[in-house]
Amino acid sequence: MKEENLTLLTDLYELTMMNGYYDIKNDERVVFDVFYRKNPSCGGYAIVAGLEQVIDYIKNLHFDSDDIEYLRELDLFDDNFLKYLENFKFTGNIYAIKEGTVVFPMEPLLKVEAPIIEAQLIETAILNIINHQSLIATKASRVCEAAKGDGVMEFGLRRAQGPDAGVYGARAAMIGGCVATSNVLCGKKFDVPVAGTHAHSWIMSFPSEYEAFRKYAELFPNNATLLVDTYDTLKSGVPNAIRVFKELKQEGKMPKKFGIRLDSGDLAYLSKNARIMLDEAGFNDATICASNDLDEYLIDDLKKQGAKIDLWGVGTSLITSKDCPSFGGVYKLAAIKKSGVVIPKIKLSEESVKITNPGDKQVFRFYDKKTGKIRGDIIGFINEKYNEDDTTTMFDPVNTWKRKELEKGTYTVRELLEPVFINGECVYESESVMQLRDYCTKEKETLSDENKRFFNPHPVHVDLSYSLWKEKNRLIEEEKKLVKTLEV
Amino acid sequence: MKEENLTLLTDLYELTMMNGYYDIKNDERVVFDVFYRKNPSCGGYAIVAGLEQVIDYIKNLHFDSDDIEYLRELDLFDDNFLKYLENFKFTGNIYAIKEGTVVFPMEPLLKVEAPIIEAQLIETAILNIINHQSLIATKASRVCEAAKGDGVMEFGLRRAQGPDAGVYGARAAMIGGCVATSNVLCGKKFDVPVAGTHAHSWIMSFPSEYEAFRKYAELFPNNATLLVDTYDTLKSGVPNAIRVFKELKQEGKMPKKFGIRLDSGDLAYLSKNARIMLDEAGFNDATICASNDLDEYLIDDLKKQGAKIDLWGVGTSLITSKDCPSFGGVYKLAAIKKSGVVIPKIKLSEESVKITNPGDKQVFRFYDKKTGKIRGDIIGFINEKYNEDDTTTMFDPVNTWKRKELEKGTYTVRELLEPVFINGECVYESESVMQLRDYCTKEKETLSDENKRFFNPHPVHVDLSYSLWKEKNRLIEEEKKLVKTLEV
Repeated sequence: MKEENLTLLTDLYELTMMNGYYDIKNDERVVFDVFYRKNPSCGGYAIVAGLEQVIDYIKNLHFDSDDIEYLRELDLFDDNFLKYLENFKFTGNIYAIKEGTVVFPMEPLLKVEAPIIEAQLIETAILNIINHQSLIATKASRVCEAAKGDGVMEFGLRRAQGPDAGVYGARAAMIGGCVATSNVLCGKKFDVPVAGTHAHSWIMSFPSEYEAFRKYAELFPNNATLLVDTYDTLKSGVPNAIRVFKELKQEGKMPKKFGIRLDSGDLAYLSKNARIMLDEAGFNDATICASNDLDEYLIDDLKKQGAKIDLWGVGTSLITSKDCPSFGGVYKLAAIKKSGVVIPKIKLSEESVKITNPGDKQVFRFYDKKTGKIRGDIIGFINEKYNEDDTTTMFDPVNTWKRKELEKGTYTVRELLEPVFINGECVYESESVMQLRDYCTKEKETLSDENKRFFNPHPVHVDLSYSLWKEKNRLIEEEKKLVKTLEV
Repeated sequence: MKEENLTLLTDLYELTMMNGYYDIKNDERVVFDVFYRKNPSCGGYAIVAGLEQVIDYIKNLHFDSDDIEYLRELDLFDDNFLKYLENFKFTGNIYAIKEGTVVFPMEPLLKVEAPIIEAQLIETAILNIINHQSLIATKASRVCEAAKGDGVMEFGLRRAQGPDAGVYGARAAMIGGCVATSNVLCGKKFDVPVAGTHAHSWIMSFPSEYEAFRKYAELFPNNATLLVDTYDTLKSGVPNAIRVFKELKQEGKMPKKFGIRLDSGDLAYLSKNARIMLDEAGFNDATICASNDLDEYLIDDLKKQGAKIDLWGVGTSLITSKDCPSFGGVYKLAAIKKSGVVIPKIKLSEESVKITNPGDKQVFRFYDKKTGKIRGDIIGFINEKYNEDDTTTMFDPVNTWKRKELEKGTYTVRELLEPVFINGECVYESESVMQLRDYCTKEKETLSDENKRFFNPHPVHVDLSYSLWKEKNRLIEEEKKLVKTLEV
């Protein structure tokens, strides 16, 4: 992605609207929010990711001469506007929640404050990047949750939706908790562990399974994981693997790490029996790795069946988030700034969940002082302050009688949106993927087990501040009156 | 993708196996097949796509010095092997089925014949590219089928799984039958039509909906499609659009194309009523475009309800193939060539559908001479010939009593796999995306309506030639004996 100019990675309508704003000389500053409405896979949370790639994209934003030539050929745009694009750069502010943070529906994950013509262009690419990586980080987190501390390896490149989906999907999967990826390009780009051994074709290219195993284990003494299901797992694969391990042990050439990989069949049955065979041969430290269309539900089920699997390779379901392959993040106008005054904007909808939250906002997260668990989030205006020495009342924005008092002294509060670009300059330093992975692990500890449940998770309360709630209701009434006037 | 070296876009195990083959001096030539086992979305066919990007990838295949440096740092590979990679290039042959062709399960879509060390490296990237684009081309074809001749526009970039998924997904969607994409970068790269008008934020940035519409229609006289659902579709949006169209007509400034877009609410109800309002105002030629989480099933249903929609914008469900987000193509060893002699290889499995077809193969497609419809496909060995003046017997490889005689003179036959690379040189010229789209439209005409049905489609028969069937059964018996011997 870095290598290519992604400025035209946008929907055509962003450019036609830009031409419109240019033409009518609309140079108002606006605030757009990126948020989503529903956690993927009916879960209790999401993990936000992709900010580093958004930063690269914004830094590199410019129209090359061949971009402008292409736009001219479309015969849609004014010459003056195309001329303006020649020197286009992003001059606004961007605020975002750190990658790896647990987030909840309706919270602004990223906020753009810029002249409308600039803010409009970047909508599509920002959504594309954040939607994709947040989706996969969330899925990876769920899969790792199911594995309960066992390592999960990301193995999905061949089924990813194109090269970027493989590389940036693997990046997001690492943030979400995977221990390694099979994707070498991701390993190189982001300095994350890569893993993998051999395929069936390796075994089939030798006269016998035994010879294939023996050769492999000799060649890779650091990690000899042998794929045992080419012919017959328990009758041929595991016995041949044990034979090779025994020989190497006798010859004093035992690999540092070793084990077997199961890639088909009944993983519960096969792993239990393979474990017995390996243990009886004295190889209690041989690991058993399993792959084959796994996801969080299957891993959870295999665990419950007592499968003896130490390491999980997860492909298609993780890299495509198979049961929920899109994140649903949107980019909505929240405010217009006229001569420094913020005018909050709202978008009505028949569906109340689709009514936007107006104004220039911040997300305030409240933690229990003792346990460190999240007690709830409040979406409020940026100028609001919450003092840990005061009692804070949270209330449900729809069922306002649902209230919760956070007693003074029992909580800590954190503001989630941090400055990333100020006046077009990047003021943010991204951490490495492995640092973000560590951070994400800690973030998940702020959730209760009930929040992390796969089915009917207990939701973390995300409420509106009293001021925001009041302003939202005022605007709803105002807009309804406006529609009344508009009726022709 | 072109701009970046994708040589490391591979699974680590491909490289460890390569190191193994290098070490044991295995320079055998092998044949690998790319095929899939089940049509996406339980459909009756798939559309193969992605070959142009595979060609770019193979042409550009080389290890840069920093790639090799990275591999060295992994501390897994021999120095001699890393030295060998410095001059690595692909020297083999690739055969493939033309993009846009309708294909069926088990057929080799692409075939690699090369030294095993080369053939192994390229597995992952080839699968990644072909799986992704074939998935989206197939989905687009289904959506277009539902639209029954209405235009379908690809609108999914913001929900695509990363930038490539947006750009190459839109490419595949165009091959599959879309009339345009909103993705400007795809338009530039592949010279395909781009489409789009404005978003709710355009309307919201004006004091009134009327002013927003009026300005937009003046600015874009070529195509003024007005988004009418910001406030209230039938009470405000459509009346304001009609007001603007009337004014422009009176002023002699009528846009060339014009109409409205519905993006929320009950599309059947709203489109029928909007149509009446537009017609009563004398705007029978105003188009009604609809978007909002559409897919082939919803479009089909809206058509059945008599919705008055002329043009469909389809986003998330198309660009992610939401109900089936992976294609499932695999890359399996089919033969080893020793001193010119082809030794067919087979991979057994408990599941019979997972047993591979051995040998160096071709796909023979039989068309009815009169109707041009496909009568069936035969997977056979490359040296087989089918003469249109002979009667050909097709039989089901599992239920062999199911037979069908193709009487001489009643059919034509076509070999689907064409040479793409010979001795590492590309011998294939890709057509433009719009040419492939035309070709794909003709390809779909070779299917019957029953093949194209969304639920329980009638399958096109894909049989094995008698020689291949015999050889496959011989190898199954041989392998079973081998497993018996292997039992320890």
